[in-house]
Amino acid sequence: MTSTTHHETQIVSDPDVPLVRVTREFDAPREKVFRAHVDPDLFARWNGPAGMETRIDRHDCRTGGSYRYVMTQDGEEYAFNGVFHEVRQDELIVQTFAFEGMPDAVALERLVLEDLGNGRCRLTCTSLVDSFEGRDGFVASGMEVGVNEGYAKLDALLAGS
Amino acid sequence: MTSTTHHETQIVSDPDVPLVRVTREFDAPREKVFRAHVDPDLFARWNGPAGMETRIDRHDCRTGGSYRYVMTQDGEEYAFNGVFHEVRQDELIVQTFAFEGMPDAVALERLVLEDLGNGRCRLTCTSLVDSFEGRDGFVASGMEVGVNEGYAKLDALLAGS
Repeated sequence: MTSTTHHETQIVSDPDVPLVRVTREFDAPREKVFRAHVDPDLFARWNGPAGMETRIDRHDCRTGGSYRYVMTQDGEEYAFNGVFHEVRQDELIVQTFAFEGMPDAVALERLVLEDLGNGRCRLTCTSLVDSFEGRDGFVASGMEVGVNEGYAKLDALLAGS
Repeated sequence: MTSTTHHETQIVSDPDVPLVRVTREFDAPREKVFRAHVDPDLFARWNGPAGMETRIDRHDCRTGGSYRYVMTQDGEEYAFNGVFHEVRQDELIVQTFAFEGMPDAVALERLVLEDLGNGRCRLTCTSLVDSFEGRDGFVASGMEVGVNEGYAKLDALLAGS
């Protein structure tokens, strides 16, 4: 039997700039967490809240690549897309992010993975937008549930793989 | 003889978010101003301050494309790169921007072209970064000279083409 520990996810809205910062530890080496972001099949297995499916249209996770995926639930579809500004093996992903229902609200996202030793790592992901209203709307839109449930799925994937 | 009018460039640092907004009118239709951004040969002819040359490594200005160029002056080289999140014909370019000497200081840039009628247009370009220190350092680094001299070259290019 596999026991999976779910670490607490911290979601902090920056007081000074329109940015939200998500911090989460994983009981897995950062190489595996990085691969779960880069590999389209793995990414689709954990991304998003528990009740939603992720269908990958493209996920070319390398510097200069782009992505598009569609999340589905009860026949509703929500599509997201962006480009990868920089992908640094096991360490860093800088990308843009847009919900196609609000294509002009583009976020600049920065994912950093730190090795904590003993096969553990810390993920920090910041999302920057151009207004506090936009940032607060994003946080209020159910982001916390999606992030928490997604990372719980990622915990299970990392424990089982 | 061609007379070229140079409009004033407004460069405004936003008081609330770490963003700088450049606004400039051109005595040319927005289709021509758009093309001068998209076409690599045209872009290289006007980009940057008067004393610098722009060498294009790649300039695939379409949604999902990427770019890299090197500016040279007196044997010094300064390289810049990014990805195009969205390119909307004659209207909009959303891209990332990084100086390779400071690769972690990535900006999210948004260029909007508005038709003013009578063959004129207004360009608005915003650069968003994740700290006021970064934004203010960018503005203080000689941005104003580069923008003004670059747009004066663009005026001449638009008048002559």
